Amino acid sequence: MGTNLKPLTGFRDFAPRERLQSRYLFETWARVARKYGFSEYEAPILESAELYLKKSGGELSEQLFRFEDKGGRDVVLRPELTASLARIAAAQQRDYPKPLKWFEIGRCFRYEKPQRGRLREFYQFNADLLGETSPSADAELIALSIDVMRELGFAEGEIIVRLSDREAWLTFCRSRGINDSELDAFLQIVDKIERDPDEKLRARLAPFDVDLESIREFIANAGPESSQNIRAVLTDLTARGLDRFTEIDLSIVRGLAYYTGVVFEVFDSSKALRSVAGGGRYDSLISIVTDGATDLPATGYAMGDCVIMELLNETPGPLAQFQAWQQRQATCDAFVVIADESKRLEAVRLVNSLREAGFGADYPLTPTKINKQFRAADQTLARFAFVVGSEYPELKLKNLNARTEESLSPNANPIDVLRARLDEPDGPLIA
Amino acid sequence: MGTNLKPLTGFRDFAPRERLQSRYLFETWARVARKYGFSEYEAPILESAELYLKKSGGELSEQLFRFEDKGGRDVVLRPELTASLARIAAAQQRDYPKPLKWFEIGRCFRYEKPQRGRLREFYQFNADLLGETSPSADAELIALSIDVMRELGFAEGEIIVRLSDREAWLTFCRSRGINDSELDAFLQIVDKIERDPDEKLRARLAPFDVDLESIREFIANAGPESSQNIRAVLTDLTARGLDRFTEIDLSIVRGLAYYTGVVFEVFDSSKALRSVAGGGRYDSLISIVTDGATDLPATGYAMGDCVIMELLNETPGPLAQFQAWQQRQATCDAFVVIADESKRLEAVRLVNSLREAGFGADYPLTPTKINKQFRAADQTLARFAFVVGSEYPELKLKNLNARTEESLSPNANPIDVLRARLDEPDGPLIA
Repeated sequence: MGTNLKPLTGFRDFAPRERLQSRYLFETWARVARKYGFSEYEAPILESAELYLKKSGGELSEQLFRFEDKGGRDVVLRPELTASLARIAAAQQRDYPKPLKWFEIGRCFRYEKPQRGRLREFYQFNADLLGETSPSADAELIALSIDVMRELGFAEGEIIVRLSDREAWLTFCRSRGINDSELDAFLQIVDKIERDPDEKLRARLAPFDVDLESIREFIANAGPESSQNIRAVLTDLTARGLDRFTEIDLSIVRGLAYYTGVVFEVFDSSKALRSVAGGGRYDSLISIVTDGATDLPATGYAMGDCVIMELLNETPGPLAQFQAWQQRQATCDAFVVIADESKRLEAVRLVNSLREAGFGADYPLTPTKINKQFRAADQTLARFAFVVGSEYPELKLKNLNARTEESLSPNANPIDVLRARLDEPDGPLIA
Repeated sequence: MGTNLKPLTGFRDFAPRERLQSRYLFETWARVARKYGFSEYEAPILESAELYLKKSGGELSEQLFRFEDKGGRDVVLRPELTASLARIAAAQQRDYPKPLKWFEIGRCFRYEKPQRGRLREFYQFNADLLGETSPSADAELIALSIDVMRELGFAEGEIIVRLSDREAWLTFCRSRGINDSELDAFLQIVDKIERDPDEKLRARLAPFDVDLESIREFIANAGPESSQNIRAVLTDLTARGLDRFTEIDLSIVRGLAYYTGVVFEVFDSSKALRSVAGGGRYDSLISIVTDGATDLPATGYAMGDCVIMELLNETPGPLAQFQAWQQRQATCDAFVVIADESKRLEAVRLVNSLREAGFGADYPLTPTKINKQFRAADQTLARFAFVVGSEYPELKLKNLNARTEESLSPNANPIDVLRARLDEPDGPLIA
């Protein structure tokens, strides 16, 4: 084929099979968020560059899809949601009772080298809790992050949430003579402590009067006594029975400059130890974004779709759960088979009345061999087929799973019969 | 407030109240599409500029958000979906049974002067039927477009679908000595026949040997005899009882060059006569986009979210239906009121077990006055509140709509009681 039918590098097409898997993920995200009392919001895909340059710092600003629009505006495809959320919350918070519990599912864009689990266009689930400083808000969000994984079928031992607290690092730094203004630069080094080689870490630590060993020791010796916030979060999670999904790990500091307190990341517990989600408290961000006009404490959490989908496809329990769900996503309740073309309009009328009654119904748009029609019915995962043939107005109703058949007299209402049959169990679906 | 908290011109923020209305629309679109046997797909937001320049012609190419990415690629934010669909369908069609019935709900971007019903970022619902030349495919799609409106609550007389056929115009042009290659240029004039002043139309018609009156006459005298395709479509729609929502109107030609046969637009029937959706057959487009590698006949339809939302908010029936739906979107089944702070952890445990049982549950994250907690419960539209107080493990369960209350003994399982109570009717919701 001469033409390039592929999407841009780092972008994905979602034909129906792939889309169904996204839908499973999105519906799970939304269901758990709603159970927790979060309401959905959405922000524009395109924002002024200033909004995102103002806050993120670090890597993000180098990964922007940034351009000038026809009106000369400096704009970006949003690389994440937090700055947009801060803007919208600041503008509209007066219209909503506090705290705000808001969630979002949408696309973000980062110009990175595409690799496993990292693409240029991806979906992200965001849940944020605004207007509440208490660690109970952090606990609520961490519980949500655990329940998303549980709802996807991950069991204890398959995932772990690592808890940390930037305030513990603030205390550490102050005790070592590191200025509060240098905290972020220092934490950028800590952020890489498990990935960068020791020489590199030592070189970057040179401006600070702290050696690598004492940082490692501080991390190794961390416990509930290291942070009052973490203690409060753990007490709350213990009441929920969710503490068993967590561990304290001060090496988690999150790359972005805007975090202020408790931070956390969700990992798969396998050797790969990939981070599937993360978040934390960002009490100053809304004030920064609004130039001080609005001050709302906040804690938030985000999960992309790439790593979790990889993990889901590799983990037997969650994968089996997804496949069982997929089996139930019939595009059609009843397929109308046209056995006699002279009855096509009668068949179309039946299709229409099935749909009016709320059922999914499909049928062949042109004359088609009967066995091909039944194959099409199977492909829609339809449980039932009506056969419209020469004996019309008598109809046949076939149960495609049980391979049984009944005749419907002209007096029977096919809608009522189908409704009754759909309510009857007919054994497990064919796997 | 010194800072600009607004989105870019022509872009919208969707705080939870606005998002709920979008959700209602999206769920309706998806429900009707699935009833008709359409499967969801999705395409990237960003595509190569070439893909969209290749096909659309006309206005669209002037309205592109187009830029060069960091890798030097000439890219666009998609202005619509059809070229992306053509690309994906050509690449993946072998993996799916024909005809393909695919739908999509997503964002599109056009740099236009923002005005009522027209924004720079908008949502669009797309349904396309690929691999079928029969007018029954056009009828299926037109029926879908009518049922979307009916499902939103629009009644007969409130909307009208205007049917046309580019083939009828092809015949007209041939009889007047207009070349097939000039058809598109000629139809661009017809497209504006109801909007542009006569002088302008006459001037634009100068290169063609046809006067304005004969065009007007052709449109005025059109009927089923004007088009074999329209006759077939109407026969099909009549069997469905949907012909009463249609009229033949050859002035509908659709602006884009790629349409080839039956075209249609859905209008509101009020004086404003706004077009809320439109579509038609585009049998050559997939071949154009794939440089001839894949040839799939196709018919499709798209509806944006802006005009329909305006119309919905102005039309009493559909608006009442939306508001009734909105009333049912409680973010919470049960609110847990903490009447005694010393029982906070017990309350958190109850919240957690409610959520584990699948209920939406919420509670105050910090010590809050009782009446404020009940106000918060009302704001979530919760039907029930559990009260955790000094008498714990005894609980109170309040029905917030019926204003009744019962005490639950420590032996009662609050989950079971709530499930039973939620299943009982308690009269209409408070409006």
